Amino acid sequence: MEQRISFITLGVDDLQAMKEWYTEKLGWTPEKTDSEGIVFFHLNGCILGLYPATELAADIGVPAAGTGFRRVTLAHNLRSEAEVDALFGELETRNVQIVKRPEKVFWGGYSGYIADPEGNYWELAYNPFALPDAAGNMPGHK
Amino acid sequence: MEQRISFITLGVDDLQAMKEWYTEKLGWTPEKTDSEGIVFFHLNGCILGLYPATELAADIGVPAAGTGFRRVTLAHNLRSEAEVDALFGELETRNVQIVKRPEKVFWGGYSGYIADPEGNYWELAYNPFALPDAAGNMPGHK
Repeated sequence: MEQRISFITLGVDDLQAMKEWYTEKLGWTPEKTDSEGIVFFHLNGCILGLYPATELAADIGVPAAGTGFRRVTLAHNLRSEAEVDALFGELETRNVQIVKRPEKVFWGGYSGYIADPEGNYWELAYNPFALPDAAGNMPGHK
Repeated sequence: MEQRISFITLGVDDLQAMKEWYTEKLGWTPEKTDSEGIVFFHLNGCILGLYPATELAADIGVPAAGTGFRRVTLAHNLRSEAEVDALFGELETRNVQIVKRPEKVFWGGYSGYIADPEGNYWELAYNPFALPDAAGNMPGHK
């Protein structure tokens, strides 16, 4: 199995509200699609999908109920501590939920967390060992 | 905020067992790292991390408890229905848990699901509208 990921799909309750958050708060551009009922954001190499949680669970064939920590975080790395601070500042003016303000962390970086309106966590981090290249990819990308 | 993802981190209970599953069942190669206690797999553009769930929750500052559907799926797209069938066949010989055998789906593709030992779902799919390019990236990658 080749070492790649094509989609990350988040199961959502309110597709329209989540689409608006990613477009209006993060400033991202969704893919144009004729399909109603699903939203795609093209990232570096893979696609982030938003899809109703009940339909996602049904597609897998598992119960849709779940509570508490989802055991997954997404991270967006930046190129300096100043970039991290600037992004947190900008998101705060847009009333994005700040879960943890950026701070120096034990592994040598500088990192904090935001949450989308349905509690998916995004870490915004400066990691001197994992600086995005010009295309936004992690170094060592084959 | 640039439209990119750097890390997907899965919170795990048994780091060693999960590392072995991704390396032995999927055949993936972890990054060499001096750090114990975390495992990285370099994908196309981003990195998949495995990290103890309790430490991940503590890093965010939220309770680690959670049950049921995690509202996230990861997908690995292939280039034909035959490739999907071949991969499911190969994984089955390695005793990977098949959650849903591949079948034709309403959006025009061919897709099934496997699960890792801690219940994270991977969709393995042929999607004629989202064929990986030669580098494994989704088409339209900017």
